[in-house]
Amino acid sequence: MSRARAPRPLILLFAALVAWPPPLAGAAEPVPLSGFSTAGADQQRALEARYDGLLKAENLRAWMQRMSSRPHHLGSPGGKANAEFARDQFRAWGYDVRIDEYQVLFPTPRLRRVELLAPQRFVAKLQEPAVAGDATSGQHVLQLPTYNAYSIDGDVTAELVYVNRGIPADYEELARRGIDVRGKVVIARYGGSWRGIKPKVAAEHGALACLIYTDPDGDGYSAGEEYPKGGYRPQDGVQRGSVADMPLYPGDPLTPGVGATADARRLPREQAPTLTKIPVLPISWADAKPLLAALAGPVAPASWRGALPLTYHIGPGPAKVRVQLAFDWKLVPAYDVIATMPGAERPDEWIVRGNHRDAWVNGAADPVSGAVALMEEARAIGELAQAGFRPKRTLVYALWDGEEQGLLGSVEWAEHHAEELRAKAVAYINSDSNSRGALGIGGSHTLQRFVNEIARDVPDPKHAVSVADRMRAFDMVGSEPGDRQRALDGADLPLEALGSGSDYTPFLQHLGIASLNLGFGGEGHYGQYHSIYDSFDHYVRFMDPDFAYGIALAKVAGRATLRLAQAELLPFQGQAFADTVAGYVDEVEALAVRQRRDTAARNRAIAAGAFATTAPPDEPRVAPTPQPELPHFNFAPLRNALERVRAAARAWDHASARGAAAAPEARALADAALRQLERALTRDEGLPGRPWFRHHVYAPGFYTGYGVKTLPGVREAIEERRDAEVEREVVRAAEVLEAFAARLDAATRALE
Amino acid sequence: MSRARAPRPLILLFAALVAWPPPLAGAAEPVPLSGFSTAGADQQRALEARYDGLLKAENLRAWMQRMSSRPHHLGSPGGKANAEFARDQFRAWGYDVRIDEYQVLFPTPRLRRVELLAPQRFVAKLQEPAVAGDATSGQHVLQLPTYNAYSIDGDVTAELVYVNRGIPADYEELARRGIDVRGKVVIARYGGSWRGIKPKVAAEHGALACLIYTDPDGDGYSAGEEYPKGGYRPQDGVQRGSVADMPLYPGDPLTPGVGATADARRLPREQAPTLTKIPVLPISWADAKPLLAALAGPVAPASWRGALPLTYHIGPGPAKVRVQLAFDWKLVPAYDVIATMPGAERPDEWIVRGNHRDAWVNGAADPVSGAVALMEEARAIGELAQAGFRPKRTLVYALWDGEEQGLLGSVEWAEHHAEELRAKAVAYINSDSNSRGALGIGGSHTLQRFVNEIARDVPDPKHAVSVADRMRAFDMVGSEPGDRQRALDGADLPLEALGSGSDYTPFLQHLGIASLNLGFGGEGHYGQYHSIYDSFDHYVRFMDPDFAYGIALAKVAGRATLRLAQAELLPFQGQAFADTVAGYVDEVEALAVRQRRDTAARNRAIAAGAFATTAPPDEPRVAPTPQPELPHFNFAPLRNALERVRAAARAWDHASARGAAAAPEARALADAALRQLERALTRDEGLPGRPWFRHHVYAPGFYTGYGVKTLPGVREAIEERRDAEVEREVVRAAEVLEAFAARLDAATRALE
Repeated sequence: MSRARAPRPLILLFAALVAWPPPLAGAAEPVPLSGFSTAGADQQRALEARYDGLLKAENLRAWMQRMSSRPHHLGSPGGKANAEFARDQFRAWGYDVRIDEYQVLFPTPRLRRVELLAPQRFVAKLQEPAVAGDATSGQHVLQLPTYNAYSIDGDVTAELVYVNRGIPADYEELARRGIDVRGKVVIARYGGSWRGIKPKVAAEHGALACLIYTDPDGDGYSAGEEYPKGGYRPQDGVQRGSVADMPLYPGDPLTPGVGATADARRLPREQAPTLTKIPVLPISWADAKPLLAALAGPVAPASWRGALPLTYHIGPGPAKVRVQLAFDWKLVPAYDVIATMPGAERPDEWIVRGNHRDAWVNGAADPVSGAVALMEEARAIGELAQAGFRPKRTLVYALWDGEEQGLLGSVEWAEHHAEELRAKAVAYINSDSNSRGALGIGGSHTLQRFVNEIARDVPDPKHAVSVADRMRAFDMVGSEPGDRQRALDGADLPLEALGSGSDYTPFLQHLGIASLNLGFGGEGHYGQYHSIYDSFDHYVRFMDPDFAYGIALAKVAGRATLRLAQAELLPFQGQAFADTVAGYVDEVEALAVRQRRDTAARNRAIAAGAFATTAPPDEPRVAPTPQPELPHFNFAPLRNALERVRAAARAWDHASARGAAAAPEARALADAALRQLERALTRDEGLPGRPWFRHHVYAPGFYTGYGVKTLPGVREAIEERRDAEVEREVVRAAEVLEAFAARLDAATRALE
Repeated sequence: MSRARAPRPLILLFAALVAWPPPLAGAAEPVPLSGFSTAGADQQRALEARYDGLLKAENLRAWMQRMSSRPHHLGSPGGKANAEFARDQFRAWGYDVRIDEYQVLFPTPRLRRVELLAPQRFVAKLQEPAVAGDATSGQHVLQLPTYNAYSIDGDVTAELVYVNRGIPADYEELARRGIDVRGKVVIARYGGSWRGIKPKVAAEHGALACLIYTDPDGDGYSAGEEYPKGGYRPQDGVQRGSVADMPLYPGDPLTPGVGATADARRLPREQAPTLTKIPVLPISWADAKPLLAALAGPVAPASWRGALPLTYHIGPGPAKVRVQLAFDWKLVPAYDVIATMPGAERPDEWIVRGNHRDAWVNGAADPVSGAVALMEEARAIGELAQAGFRPKRTLVYALWDGEEQGLLGSVEWAEHHAEELRAKAVAYINSDSNSRGALGIGGSHTLQRFVNEIARDVPDPKHAVSVADRMRAFDMVGSEPGDRQRALDGADLPLEALGSGSDYTPFLQHLGIASLNLGFGGEGHYGQYHSIYDSFDHYVRFMDPDFAYGIALAKVAGRATLRLAQAELLPFQGQAFADTVAGYVDEVEALAVRQRRDTAARNRAIAAGAFATTAPPDEPRVAPTPQPELPHFNFAPLRNALERVRAAARAWDHASARGAAAAPEARALADAALRQLERALTRDEGLPGRPWFRHHVYAPGFYTGYGVKTLPGVREAIEERRDAEVEREVVRAAEVLEAFAARLDAATRALE
């Protein structure tokens, strides 16, 4: 250990885990625990030591084997059986359990056909074969076929165009080459955006249908040996997935904003705005290869080329394809398993902990690996409860259905219970697929310190360091100087801002509930995503063979749940939030500067004829349309609001440092304000054009899908050149920050 | 045209080319021409207009077809015939011509065999097949086989290790994984360095043999369709090339520093330090694929993966290979064709203009495309001379032999004539392979303004702009903000600093003669490099079908030659040199800061155990050895010298602006100083460890081979952690800059 790293809290903690109180406790500084007094921290640590001791990897293994033994997608018998199994387990562990049922739109294929008609004929296979050594890969009758949910029906015959990732920047490249996708079928690679962006942008540009294929440059042979030799996607493997326009709103397409109960008012399907505008189908690289090889036209730019052994051309044509898709558009029941352990002191303060339960097929990794860690967490707490433990606040464990189709289970439940959740929820803690590797931490920055204290306290199961220090070690050997320095300084690890892609979205971005997303990963061989190969056999060979990281997840998420439940004062802090948002403000200001500079330069290049002048032989280059120069914007309201946040954060962090020792009434008052803190970052009218998304600091990007846009109103107005809206969005963002500061001040006053 | 671009000198010039003097000449500012008075510039432009009018694309075509009609490598009958053909042509055009002959070491293969012995057997083909539609690809008897010249003989059987590009950073990655190449055969991809670096670094790490293959991610199917469908390297195509340790010294390995005349003193071959230390052979991807597919061990890092449809593993083994190489180590004659047109006024001031003549096989592109442009340039000037034109200064046209083996012809000639060249050479103007596309400009920054004036005055043959404005257009639509802004501002295009890879090296870096390297490219389909497919048939389909860019090269290089020959005052300037070197000083200072920061951070990461901690499952991670912390260096001598250069540059550029009107004796005196200006940047003792390289501003990198290292003494001492040498090299670099400033001051004084 270098000097700077010598006095590690971790070293003390390891000692503590072996023998509490530690032999040298008298000589050592007590390690702080946000939200707890010194005595409370001792109790909490003792509780956590008991909790850790109860966790059993064999439970994760047995439950995964059972729950992934057959396909268990939304609406399937396997799904219902798993819901009932989980319900019975929670009940046996002492929880109040119910299954909340919603009726949701879920199309399944009646017809899928992709045919190359010219220059030669080829019919796509659209089928993943069983492989040796994978016990469940042959369950073809029960498996959902390979498709994208919420594609519309269609029968399209047209020339093919390769559009790379199919994001807006790719269509700009096409336009530079004078290539128009109107009336064409486009084929896009997976990656570079959430998949639903690809048909959305294709339709915006006039394409008639969209194919999405998995190039081997992603999770195929480029990354590692193909399954079953290795863990990576084989040639016929297909990534299923939803393509509903989730950045508009997630959840059931027919019931935006309200729970999809049996009697809910539903949109006619034809009016549901989140269904795709064109038919779309995912295919394997083995099916894509003949199509790509049949394209002529310009050679694709270097960054568009994948790992197939061919020259990537753009087209259009001479490849001509027919895409036929028809779906059975039915409502199916979604079953959310909700298990509650009421709080002894503050039953109306809820800690909600969720993971989805449904899979695309067998889903050993996605989602069972996370679900079984959650179940073991709940089981251990149940065992503690049987030995006399009672949480102060109420624990709500949830296993969501229909996440794969667009967060259906969590969204409908959150919409259905919105009022109660707004009043009672302290935080939502999410997990999803888990694997071996480093801990990933995302969420509300008011919980950054809190998460760091947990990551500091949980040992990595394979290396003699805490999971926090393993994360720091990756930064230390990485190439990013800022991350490296922060790690060497032992500073707090940053939380990733949350976009979308899992069940925290309704809680965080619709309801304004402080949220976390936790999970290990990076060292699994993850080529089975959303395919029939996401099986138990795959998981125990290539993901987390001994479930050691599943147990580590139970330790991390269990601590998050237990510390939030037991805290004497809720452990929200201000500094990291203020610093992080300051970074976002810097970013959006820099973005405006860059957009202004780039626009001006591009306009001048257009005027100079530079686009035509750089045309290569036998290819056109078409200049873009000049854009209005970008005005200068007034960011002062955001800067001023930020100063308010900084001051409030300083005051609160100072006041709360010893707040756990304050009078109970003061703490209750402070907690009430803190519970509403994240709510302050939302506005009832939501974001421009998508009112469902109410959070004005974190949102999934309208053109990234999963990828986060922070300060989304401001950022997307600048990016999308809605210049006239920028200053209004600056004011709105400033207002939510002011409201945040005011609530933090209220908490501070409560402790005075 | 945007406002900023309205008053283009080009527009005036186009008018000028149509009707000189221009109709509006009275109203327009005369376009300046460095080194010429207004009257002199008018004369020069008239001369250039006549010159342009004489250039004929059909000559280039006919000569290329003839000179590439059979293989014409060093020592071949085809090479000798081409030398004699060129000699006769020059003679017919009125030049004094001679063929200078040197005796150089040139090994050719007696035995080449690569066999995979385990886990299965495979014998490499090592043969490029003839292809349909390529008239010369079947001349197997005359072709040099696929091999790397100056590999030593050897017969090695060992396990195989994949080492990516085979540069030092790749061996660091191997070391992190605990993989040692001692006693192994390594296989490296072409690219990422000059090829000779790969066996050199492999041998430094203890490898026994080195294979180099062309991954299709380079100039193969990834870039475009394979020849003959497209212009890119087919599966059996191999890149021949020299692997002598040219960064130590180029030229004949047996006669460093002296001309390889018949009676020159020669090193015994065993003592020639530039021969490889281990056997090395280039192979095609079709031959490499079974070898790579037979490797196991860790999956290669993402940046190591090529475009073959397989998972790239590192090994070592289980692939086991045998590499057998034996060569016929003979001396062969190299024939340099030297054609001279004596100067009428200043016969002892030489403008040397060269291109190599020898090829690896048929070499239509490399080098005939450049050679025929040079010949047409010489022919047109000969035609002018027959009509009465006499150059003021002496023109020396050279067609070098043995460039492919390591600049043999130019190096031996320059060494042989060193004294005369040091006294008489004004500048050396080089070209090599030419293709369609943008003009590439490299060279001494004292000639940056000069080259910009030429690029401003030559129209692109396919677009209605000057070649300079086409270069600017590429910058305008590119992504680099600095380049973009410079282009939009209409500022001078920067010269690339010269490393190595063509025949300017002996002139610039050994003798200190100001040099230029000129050529068009970027829009050819260049997958035939150093293969049998570099043919006339390939050239006229995929490179420059109508030789329009060959003519453009003749216009550019011809102007450079003629303007230097005719200038009333030599057109060297100071500002661009001063600004450019200031950038280099910034770079080496920043490099030291970065090295210091990175070393300290790495040492701390080592101490923290971060390398072991980030080991993935089933793979070790080995920490590097801690390095001494980097001291702070005194760069003040360099900064002070730079101030001297800046002041001298300001004074000279001011004085020279009207210098063409000065008295003839003053101009002669100034010219004498200017001729020696670049010489001031050299030192007799050369660079550390490689005295042949005397230039202290430009050198090929010891570990890049072709890639330039500017301020090489300082930069490489920092990079290679020869900390104790850094300040000595700073002083040396400062001294050459001071000497440069002193000579520039002498030129300024001459005009006063």
